[in-house]
Amino acid sequence: MPYFEDLSVGDRFETGTFSMTTEEIVAFARDFDPQPFHLGEEEAVGTFFGRLVASGWHTGAVTMRLLVESGTFPEGIVGASGELVWPRPTFPGDTLRVRGEITELLPSPSRPERGMVTVLCETVNQRSEVVQRMKTRILVLRRPGS
Amino acid sequence: MPYFEDLSVGDRFETGTFSMTTEEIVAFARDFDPQPFHLGEEEAVGTFFGRLVASGWHTGAVTMRLLVESGTFPEGIVGASGELVWPRPTFPGDTLRVRGEITELLPSPSRPERGMVTVLCETVNQRSEVVQRMKTRILVLRRPGS
Repeated sequence: MPYFEDLSVGDRFETGTFSMTTEEIVAFARDFDPQPFHLGEEEAVGTFFGRLVASGWHTGAVTMRLLVESGTFPEGIVGASGELVWPRPTFPGDTLRVRGEITELLPSPSRPERGMVTVLCETVNQRSEVVQRMKTRILVLRRPGS
Repeated sequence: MPYFEDLSVGDRFETGTFSMTTEEIVAFARDFDPQPFHLGEEEAVGTFFGRLVASGWHTGAVTMRLLVESGTFPEGIVGASGELVWPRPTFPGDTLRVRGEITELLPSPSRPERGMVTVLCETVNQRSEVVQRMKTRILVLRRPGS
C-alpha cells in the first residue's frame, strides 16, 4: 500500500477499460440527468448533440470506477476537489480508460499524518480521444513516523 | 424557455430537494466507487470517514438531477467544464438541495448562436451545511436573430 512518501511527481499510471452501453447510459440519465440527449436515440434527435450521448457525470463516475479498480491508491481515494473539462461527449459503445499522472505532492501543514496529491487524469475513448480531463486533489496517508 | 439574453449576472435560483438513502448510496458505490467507506456501515468502520458516506460523484450526480428538475435551463444543461469542492461528506438520510447564482455571461466569440453561462452552485444538506461547491460553465442558446 503506497504511502505519500512512496509517490513522486511525474509518476504515471493507466487503468483498465470500461465499455459504455446504451442501456447504462440511459439508466444513469433517468436517475441523475434526465435530459433528452441522454435518454434515448429518438429523444436526442433535434437536440444540441443530435444523438444519444452519456451524461458528463456518467463519464466522471466511470472514470472513478476505473481509478478505484486500478488499485493505484489502494488505501482509498478521498477527493477533496476536482476540475473537470469535457472536450467531447461519450457515445454508446465507447470504451473508456484513464491515464493519470501525479503533478504535485503537498504534505498537509496542519495534519502531519496526511498529504495532498494532485493527479491529472485524462479519460480517453478507443480512438485515444480525450472525453474528460480532470485535475483532482486527493488525500493520501503519510508513512507512520515520517 | 430562457435564452442567453434573458439571463443576468446575479440571478439566483433554488432547486427542490432529494433525500439520500443508504440503499442508493451503496448501489451507486457498487457501480462507480466501490471503496469501503461507500459500501456499507460495517465496511466503513476503521476507514478515513469511520462511517458510511456517499461518493462525491453521487453528490454531484444528485446535484445534476436537482438542477435539471428545477427547470432553470429548460433547453438543456450542456456542461463544458466544472470545478468541484466537497467541503464535507453526504451521509445517509441527508436531504440535499442546490442554491445557484449566475456569475458570468459570455457570448461565444466563434459561435454567434451560443453563449456561455457561469453558474456557482452550492449543494447544501438539511442543516444548510455545504456538501459541494461547484462552479460550472454551461452552454445556452442565444435568441435567434440577436
